[in-house]
Amino acid sequence: MSARGEAELVASSWEGDGDWDLARVVHALRDARGTRSDGASLRRGPLPSRDALDAIVRGLRSALFPTHFGSSDLTDTSVDYFVGHTLDATLRSLQQQTLRTLAYESEESVAERTVEVLERRAAHLIAQFAARLPYVRALLERDVQAAYDGDPAAKSRAEIMFCYPGVSAIIHHRLAHELYELGLTLLARVISESAHSSTGIDIHPGATIGERFFIDHGTGVVIGETAVIGDRVRLYQGVTLGAKRFPLDGQGAVVKGLLRHPIIEDDVVIYAGATILGRVTIGRGSTIGGNVWVTRSVPPYSQVSQAQAQSECFDGGAGI
Amino acid sequence: MSARGEAELVASSWEGDGDWDLARVVHALRDARGTRSDGASLRRGPLPSRDALDAIVRGLRSALFPTHFGSSDLTDTSVDYFVGHTLDATLRSLQQQTLRTLAYESEESVAERTVEVLERRAAHLIAQFAARLPYVRALLERDVQAAYDGDPAAKSRAEIMFCYPGVSAIIHHRLAHELYELGLTLLARVISESAHSSTGIDIHPGATIGERFFIDHGTGVVIGETAVIGDRVRLYQGVTLGAKRFPLDGQGAVVKGLLRHPIIEDDVVIYAGATILGRVTIGRGSTIGGNVWVTRSVPPYSQVSQAQAQSECFDGGAGI
Amino acid sequence: MSARGEAELVASSWEGDGDWDLARVVHALRDARGTRSDGASLRRGPLPSRDALDAIVRGLRSALFPTHFGSSDLTDTSVDYFVGHTLDATLRSLQQQTLRTLAYESEESVAERTVEVLERRAAHLIAQFAARLPYVRALLERDVQAAYDGDPAAKSRAEIMFCYPGVSAIIHHRLAHELYELGLTLLARVISESAHSSTGIDIHPGATIGERFFIDHGTGVVIGETAVIGDRVRLYQGVTLGAKRFPLDGQGAVVKGLLRHPIIEDDVVIYAGATILGRVTIGRGSTIGGNVWVTRSVPPYSQVSQAQAQSECFDGGAGI
Repeated sequence: MSARGEAELVASSWEGDGDWDLARVVHALRDARGTRSDGASLRRGPLPSRDALDAIVRGLRSALFPTHFGSSDLTDTSVDYFVGHTLDATLRSLQQQTLRTLAYESEESVAERTVEVLERRAAHLIAQFAARLPYVRALLERDVQAAYDGDPAAKSRAEIMFCYPGVSAIIHHRLAHELYELGLTLLARVISESAHSSTGIDIHPGATIGERFFIDHGTGVVIGETAVIGDRVRLYQGVTLGAKRFPLDGQGAVVKGLLRHPIIEDDVVIYAGATILGRVTIGRGSTIGGNVWVTRSVPPYSQVSQAQAQSECFDGGAGI
Repeated sequence: MSARGEAELVASSWEGDGDWDLARVVHALRDARGTRSDGASLRRGPLPSRDALDAIVRGLRSALFPTHFGSSDLTDTSVDYFVGHTLDATLRSLQQQTLRTLAYESEESVAERTVEVLERRAAHLIAQFAARLPYVRALLERDVQAAYDGDPAAKSRAEIMFCYPGVSAIIHHRLAHELYELGLTLLARVISESAHSSTGIDIHPGATIGERFFIDHGTGVVIGETAVIGDRVRLYQGVTLGAKRFPLDGQGAVVKGLLRHPIIEDDVVIYAGATILGRVTIGRGSTIGGNVWVTRSVPPYSQVSQAQAQSECFDGGAGI
Repeated sequence: MSARGEAELVASSWEGDGDWDLARVVHALRDARGTRSDGASLRRGPLPSRDALDAIVRGLRSALFPTHFGSSDLTDTSVDYFVGHTLDATLRSLQQQTLRTLAYESEESVAERTVEVLERRAAHLIAQFAARLPYVRALLERDVQAAYDGDPAAKSRAEIMFCYPGVSAIIHHRLAHELYELGLTLLARVISESAHSSTGIDIHPGATIGERFFIDHGTGVVIGETAVIGDRVRLYQGVTLGAKRFPLDGQGAVVKGLLRHPIIEDDVVIYAGATILGRVTIGRGSTIGGNVWVTRSVPPYSQVSQAQAQSECFDGGAGI
């Protein structure tokens, strides 16, 4: 490069023209996007927004637990107004995100007629969701109590609400699970992944979880889509309730939708790092020791430790 | 639903009235909250705020390390003004959060007299906290040096400060531990959980940690409330220093406050995924191999690998 | 303390003077900072900003995938304008951060002459980076397809883009790796650590990763600086591709820059929690079972389960 070229280069990079060949990069990126899949998406309107869904979860959380997550100036008399106002604004936003999802997942193009149908469906779904909120709150109240009862380090209700990632994860999960049950799987997954990002706890919104559920510490926990968990179950960090095999179809792609995750019955405790894979059943009242690897069902009231697991239950690793 | 009903439904959902029966949901949520625990909380005034505490940690961090976390236009002459101003504003905010905690944890209702007592106590506590900051900074300086010395991939001091989750976690911990020692356990826990969320490293603020501490990678590390860690200790991702058993009281609830976590003496290295449970002692200079499970004490200068651990130290999993 | 003293204390703490001895703390912190390392840093100008780099990654991501991460009102005709505008603003910001890094890493003080040289270098580096973006996008497109093909729970392209931490991590990694290859290791590390914080997946930007790479769940994954990964490799949560030993130099500090992480050949699957340490080679088409610990090379098409690993491959833990 000539000295003159260099001088111009420096000048231009500080006068705002840049040095990169912008037009060429933009052109190459357009080619890379192609016209098919992304173009079709654009014509179906905007996608749901992760930021909006994060705000929606915060709104629902503060409406369910205004004492802990509401504004700081609430009184006995003002709290219902706060709840009503927050809930209304939040459900309205959720309805809009629902409409975006329905439009995205709809096969047809968005003609005027279809929009009306989708709007009606969105309104109907959110009304069903709203009606479930008191039930969801009752479940969460019991989860909070289970956290307090289950951890010797817990000192107050405020500590449980503010500081337990397992409590944050179950709040997200119980809300996401309701959306999943209504068929809004994309919205549900965005919410569960937001909890995964902030807590390290990865619960698929499809998982069915009973009352008084508690996860302590939680980083690295994975609970799969078709897992079923009973009442009063306690998990520690790094526990996986996963799939063992992924059967392939004729084209070599994984088959979707099979029941492939464990069933954990009532009153089971699973210690840190234990891995349970496949559609097996852990019988009620069982204790699974830390780092244990289980790929077969165990009867009720079993106490599975690592040594036992190796001789009795171990059969060679996931998917092998 | 009649065609007319459907039309009205669609209209209303877009005119802002919503379709959900808001009054009924708000009413059900009020019933669910009950009157006792949450009502009492409201009368004790606002709870501490997690957002405020996140800002406080950022403020303290930029006052302790203005070169790396202060504003980008600092010079040799302006840096002290930045530190003084930031520290003053941050400590003031911390004092306010302290007052909220004291009010929340106080048994009595907040009469005028009590507020004065609590304000005096908050001011006293924060003065003690402020006086400890130079000591905390000296400790952190040595932790930063330990990170640089301990990782072959570390290339500069800026990389250590900006990119090492273990350094972020220990900055949070050393600040939180000071608050914990002053009895401000709720504030301390909110700060430690914020670090857990962003780093995957879960250190209870009660843990006692010596000089030149380094955690590499860090995701999944758990260090319990009563753990004691000596000088020059190095941990890798997924290490648990946890409790082995949770004794229950007469009502079946876990007993709180026992010494239940390991003692790690000076110069110990614990590799990824190792789990050490219970009030055991890992003697000075020992090396604990990856994925090892230890529930008994080991003498100084031990080298514990997985095979040894299974024959000598393993006794069947946590809490079984 | 006299009653009068107490009253003054309370008053002062609420009139804004504080109770802490601010001047003393500021003075002690200045002494603690010393004059050498931090002072030198200040004279080299501002350090790169983590917030700015987070915004840069968001900008690049929305320019590469405008349908999913661009503004919500894009149409077929407006999308190129959005891409061009976003890219230009983002690259300009990246150039500024690059200049800061070059100034920080430069040995000399920042005289006028040096600034010009650094500016020219920054402009040249970013032009090279920009030219690589279409290639990076093509790689990412195949990673997204691999995620869809590899997970039975995946239901739509939007779900893959919004909800898969492994996809977020590989987007960050492929951008960071380009910066690393250009010698901008500090910027690269800030970006990779941002992904680590939000996904729990810790990929050093130096790692070389082939096409169609997929990490499922991902929390706790660690991939070291000198790791080399082939095409169509799939990893699950908690997999470590790490170093086995850290040789020390004459001063007892770790030696930097050695090839010390595994080589994973094409079409390998590594299940949850497996740990592979040292410069070993996992032969093409192999399957490494969950929780397996490997510190020796394995031939192509091996199926390594935990039992085999213990008798054949296990040699006693990391670094022992």
